[in-house]
Amino acid sequence: MDILTSQERERLRSLPASELDRYAEGIRRTLVDTVAENGGHLASNLGVVELTMALHRVFDTPRDKIIWDVGHQSYVHKLLTGRRERFSTLRTYGGLSGFPKESESLHDAFNTGHSTTSISVAVGMARARDLLGEDYHVVAVIGDGALTGGMAWEALNDAGHRKDRVIVVLNDNTMSIRPNVGAMSAYLARLRTQPRYGRFKRRLLQCFGESGPLFNFANRIKKFLKYLLIPGVFFEEMDWTYLGPVDGHNVVEMEKVFRQARGMHEPVLIHVCTQKGKGYRPAMERPQRFHGPGPFHKDTGEEKAGFVRTCDIIAGDTILDCAKENPRICAITAAMSDGCGLHPFAQCFPRRFFDVGIAEEHAVTMAAGLAAGGMLPYVCIYATFLQRAYDQLIHDVCLTRKQVVLAVSHTGLTGEDGETHQGIFTFSYLTAIPHMTVLAPATRGELSAMLRLAPRVGGPVAVCYGKKLPDGELPPEDALLSGRWEKCLDAPAADTVILAVGAMVENALSAARETEGRVAVVNCRWVKPLDQETLAWAAGHAYVITLEDNEVTGGFGASVAQGLAVLGFRGRLLNLGYQDAYVPHGAISRLWQDAGLDEPGVLASMKKLWEESDEEAPGHAFG
Amino acid sequence: MDILTSQERERLRSLPASELDRYAEGIRRTLVDTVAENGGHLASNLGVVELTMALHRVFDTPRDKIIWDVGHQSYVHKLLTGRRERFSTLRTYGGLSGFPKESESLHDAFNTGHSTTSISVAVGMARARDLLGEDYHVVAVIGDGALTGGMAWEALNDAGHRKDRVIVVLNDNTMSIRPNVGAMSAYLARLRTQPRYGRFKRRLLQCFGESGPLFNFANRIKKFLKYLLIPGVFFEEMDWTYLGPVDGHNVVEMEKVFRQARGMHEPVLIHVCTQKGKGYRPAMERPQRFHGPGPFHKDTGEEKAGFVRTCDIIAGDTILDCAKENPRICAITAAMSDGCGLHPFAQCFPRRFFDVGIAEEHAVTMAAGLAAGGMLPYVCIYATFLQRAYDQLIHDVCLTRKQVVLAVSHTGLTGEDGETHQGIFTFSYLTAIPHMTVLAPATRGELSAMLRLAPRVGGPVAVCYGKKLPDGELPPEDALLSGRWEKCLDAPAADTVILAVGAMVENALSAARETEGRVAVVNCRWVKPLDQETLAWAAGHAYVITLEDNEVTGGFGASVAQGLAVLGFRGRLLNLGYQDAYVPHGAISRLWQDAGLDEPGVLASMKKLWEESDEEAPGHAFG
Repeated sequence: MDILTSQERERLRSLPASELDRYAEGIRRTLVDTVAENGGHLASNLGVVELTMALHRVFDTPRDKIIWDVGHQSYVHKLLTGRRERFSTLRTYGGLSGFPKESESLHDAFNTGHSTTSISVAVGMARARDLLGEDYHVVAVIGDGALTGGMAWEALNDAGHRKDRVIVVLNDNTMSIRPNVGAMSAYLARLRTQPRYGRFKRRLLQCFGESGPLFNFANRIKKFLKYLLIPGVFFEEMDWTYLGPVDGHNVVEMEKVFRQARGMHEPVLIHVCTQKGKGYRPAMERPQRFHGPGPFHKDTGEEKAGFVRTCDIIAGDTILDCAKENPRICAITAAMSDGCGLHPFAQCFPRRFFDVGIAEEHAVTMAAGLAAGGMLPYVCIYATFLQRAYDQLIHDVCLTRKQVVLAVSHTGLTGEDGETHQGIFTFSYLTAIPHMTVLAPATRGELSAMLRLAPRVGGPVAVCYGKKLPDGELPPEDALLSGRWEKCLDAPAADTVILAVGAMVENALSAARETEGRVAVVNCRWVKPLDQETLAWAAGHAYVITLEDNEVTGGFGASVAQGLAVLGFRGRLLNLGYQDAYVPHGAISRLWQDAGLDEPGVLASMKKLWEESDEEAPGHAFG
Repeated sequence: MDILTSQERERLRSLPASELDRYAEGIRRTLVDTVAENGGHLASNLGVVELTMALHRVFDTPRDKIIWDVGHQSYVHKLLTGRRERFSTLRTYGGLSGFPKESESLHDAFNTGHSTTSISVAVGMARARDLLGEDYHVVAVIGDGALTGGMAWEALNDAGHRKDRVIVVLNDNTMSIRPNVGAMSAYLARLRTQPRYGRFKRRLLQCFGESGPLFNFANRIKKFLKYLLIPGVFFEEMDWTYLGPVDGHNVVEMEKVFRQARGMHEPVLIHVCTQKGKGYRPAMERPQRFHGPGPFHKDTGEEKAGFVRTCDIIAGDTILDCAKENPRICAITAAMSDGCGLHPFAQCFPRRFFDVGIAEEHAVTMAAGLAAGGMLPYVCIYATFLQRAYDQLIHDVCLTRKQVVLAVSHTGLTGEDGETHQGIFTFSYLTAIPHMTVLAPATRGELSAMLRLAPRVGGPVAVCYGKKLPDGELPPEDALLSGRWEKCLDAPAADTVILAVGAMVENALSAARETEGRVAVVNCRWVKPLDQETLAWAAGHAYVITLEDNEVTGGFGASVAQGLAVLGFRGRLLNLGYQDAYVPHGAISRLWQDAGLDEPGVLASMKKLWEESDEEAPGHAFG
C-alpha cells in the first residue's frame, strides 16, 4: 500500500498554468518509455494526461473517489499518486498492475477491468456516503466507447431518478478500441460540434449562482431553452445535468468545470473531448494500433518482433474463408474486431459484419435473432467478456439450440492484463449450459478446422482458444467431428493418463515424456460432451489427471470427475488447474509455473500423487 | 405444432370496428376465467388485449415475426393463433406454456421469459431478413419496465446506427411489476402528457407521403421542429423514428399507426399507452397483486388459499429486522421488491431501499459500490435473473471480496413459469467464483438464520433458497457459522450417505427412512466451501449420493466429486439433479418426479446403484 499523500501530486497542484504543458509533456515521455518497454495501453493514457492532471488538481484522493472505467487509462493517475518509482514494473509479474487495484494504492478506489462498471460503482459509493453522513466527491471517468454498454444506461436511469450527487466525466475520444459505433456516438459528435447550449448554460449558472431563487429562475429558463438549443438533451432527459463539451487537453478549462460540478448536489455529466494518442505521433496516426501494443521501438513506433496475435488472426481469417463459401455466415463482435482478427472480414463483407459496441449481451441475443432468421452467425468475443452474456447464452441461444458459433478468444490465462482479464472461468460457465457443445483446439490447425466444422456439429458450439497455440497439422475432418478425443501419447505400460485440454496438451506431452512410458496423454478436444469411450479407457488406469487452463471448480476436471463416478472409477483422480483463486498479472509462463501447470509443475504433481498412493495402498489393483 | 392459419384470427380480421369492443370483452372473460383457475400473469394480459388484436389485424404471423418481450403478456396472442381450445391447460404440466414457445406454435417467433431481449432478437431477425433478401416485418413488443434493462439501450444504439428496418412497440403501462422506477419512466410520462409532436409528425407524414422529395422536405421540417416540440427526442437522438403516443385500447387508432410503421424502412418506435388490468376491476385496482397471482375467486379477486410466498416473506422480514439493528444494512432489488418480500423494508427504510428497475447488472455492481463505501448491502434477486449479473459477481463483488449478501430467491425449480425461470444453474455459476460463500437453507428457520448471520461470514455470501421450504427450528448460531454440515439422519450400519442441499434435504430424509438404517442423510448447508471433515466422514462409506435442486454439471455434486477425488475416495458416487437439460413448466412436485428427485425417485436410484455394484463387485471393500 502506497503512502496516502503524494509529493508528486502536491507538486502538480502548485504548478502555475504556464507550466502545465511542460509537465504534461514529461508524463507523456514516461508513458511512451515504459509502454515501449513493457507493452500496455498507450493511446488511451496519452489521451487523458491533462484530464487526469485536472482531476487531481481539483479532487482530493483518496478522500474523494475516482473510478476509472475499464481502468487501462489509469497510468497517469498512478504516476500522480506515488507510483512513479515503481512505474517501470508496470504489468510485469509482481509489479504494478495495468489497471486500478485497491490492494496497490488507497488512491485506487475500486478495481476495474471490464467496461461500463464505473457509473454503477460511483452511484453505490455516493449513496453510501450520503447514508453514512460523510462528505466527499465521487467521480466516474468513462469513455464514449464504454457508454455503448447497457450498464451505463441502467446506472444513468437509476441515478437520474434518485438524484444522487455523483459526477460522471465522459471522456469522449470518438473511439473505444476501434472507431466508435452506435447511434450514441453520432449523438456525441453532434454535441461536440454544437456546443452552444453548454456554453450558454455555464454562463447562466455563473450569472445566477448555484442555489437560491435566482438559481431556480435560471434553472427554469434553462429547462425552457434546452429544447431549443439541443446539446445534452439526451442526458438532461435522464435527469442528469450536462456540462460541456470541454477541451480535454486544456487543464485550466477543465478545472473550472470540475470545480463547478463539485458544488452541485445532483447527478452531473461532464463531456470532455480528448484525442487518443495525443502527443506521440505514431499513436495519433494509428490510435487503434496503439490501443494495447506489445513492446515497440519508441522512435518509429514499430512493434518489436515476437508479438503476433496468431490465434486471433487464424480465427478471423478462417471465418472469412468460410463466409466466402457460405453466404449465410456473418460475424459479430462487441468492439473487438481487431482483437478477434475480424478486420479483414469487416473489409470484405461489411454488410455481414456487425460490431455492436461494448455490448456483449446484445451481441449474443442479436446473434440468436440472426440464427432464428436463417443466418449462421459467428460471435467473436474474449472469454472474459463473454461472461457478460452468460444469461443470454442460457436463455436465448441454448434453450432452443440456435445455431450460433462462439469463437471464444483469450480462453485461459491472458497474462499481463491480470485478474480481470484471465479467461479462466470459461469451461465452468459454458459446460453447465445444456445443449452447448464446447470445443478446445490444442494447435493452430485444430483451431482453424474447428471453426470451419463447427456448424456441422449442430446447435450452439463454442470454440475456446487461448492466446498462443503451437503449430500443428490440420486433423482429418472425421476425427474432429466424431466427438472423440485423441490419444496423442500412449504407452502399453502406462498406469497414468493425462486428460489435457487446449494449450495444456503441449505441457502434458512434455511432462509425460519425462516419465519413461508411465504416462499417456489425451487431447480432449471435446470439452463437452465428454468422449465417453476414451473416458472409459482412461478409467482403466490407476491414475487419471485432468489438466486445463481454467478454474478447477466446475471446469473440465469437474465433468471428468462426474463422468468417472458414473463409470465406477476406483483409481485416483487429480484435477489440475486454478484452485479457486483469481490469477494476477504477469507473463503466462510465469503464472503457469506458479499454478503448477507447466511441465515441471505437472511432473511434480504426478510424482506426489504416485508417492501418496504408494504410501496409502502399496500395490494398487490396477495397471 | 399448431396449424399455421388460425380461424380465430381470420374472424378477428373481418370484424367491423363496431364489434371490436365486444370481441375484446370476450377475450378478457377467457383470460380471467383461465388465470383464476390456473394462476398466471393477468394484469399485463388484460392490458394488451386491444394491442394484440391490432397487431394481428395488421401483421401476418408466422410470416411476420412478433417478439414478445418477457413473454408473459402473450396469452391473447395465443388465443388468436389457434390455441383457444388448449387454453385451459395454460401453465399446467404438458399444457400450454405461459410464455411464447417456438416448439408450441410457428406464431411464436422466439422463446422469451427474461426481460429486455426482444429488441436484440428483432434486430437480429431483421438483419437476417435483409441479408437473405426476404420480405417480412419484425415487431418487438416491449414494456416500459423492460426498457430499464441495459440490453434495450444496447440494441437501440446498434439498430439506430445501422438503420435497420425494425418495429418496436413500446407498451407503456407505467409499471413493470411495481410502479416503474428510473428517469426513463418520468420521461415517458412527459411524453404521454405532451403528445403534440407525435400528432404533428403523423399529420406531416400523412400530408407529404412517405417517400420522394416532398417527404424529404417534410423530414427536414420534422428534424427542425422536433427540438421545439419535445416528445420523442430521446429516441430520435438514437436515430429511431418515434410515433405516438397512441391509445393502446383503441384498436382502430393503433391499426393506423401500425400500417404507417409497416411502410417505413428504418427503425421505428411506436409508443402505445395501455392500462394494466384493464377491464377487470380487482386487477385495475391492484395491478401489482394481479401481476402474477395464484388461483383466485374471480368474482372477488381474492386469492384461493395455499398460495403464500412464505420463503420470500421470511427473507424480506429478516432483512428488515437486521436493518433495524444495523444502520449500515440496505436492500437492493431489480424490480422484484414484492417477489422478494421487500415491500415492508421499502416502507420502513425508503432511503436504504433501492429498486433499480430491471437492471441486475447495475444492481450488483452498485451494491459493490455501496459496500466499498461502507454500507452492508443485501441484494435480493431471483436465481434465474441473477444470471444476468454473472460477470459483475466475478468482477465487481468477489474479486475484492466485497461484503455483499445475495439473497438468491427462487433457487431450484420454480414450476409453472417453465424453462426460462427454473433456477437450476445457481450452484453451477456461483460455486465456480473464487471468494464466494454459498449457503442453502433446508428449512425456514435456517433461511432466516443464514440471512442474519451472513455478514459474519465475511466477504460475499449467497443465501440460495427455493420457493418452498419446510418449517424448521432455528439452528444454533455456532453450528451455522462453523461451516459444518449437519448429519440429520445417521445410522451405525449405514453404508450409504446422501449429501443433500436445501429443499432436497426433506426428500433425502424421507427416502432414507425407507431403507431401514442403510442410509445416512447430511444437510449440506454450506454448498461452498465444502465441509471437508464431514466429507471425509462420508468418504468412509461405500456409497455417496449428492442430491440437489440444480443442474448436475458444475453443481454441488461436481464439487463433491472433486472433493472426494482429493480424498482418494474409492466407493461409488452418484450425482442426482437435473441431467444437462432444461426443465419445462408444471407443478414442482411433478417435475421432481420426472427428474427422479422426489422420495420414490431417490429410493429407486439408490437401489439401482446398490444392485449395479453388487453385480460388479460382490462384497465391496467398505462398510
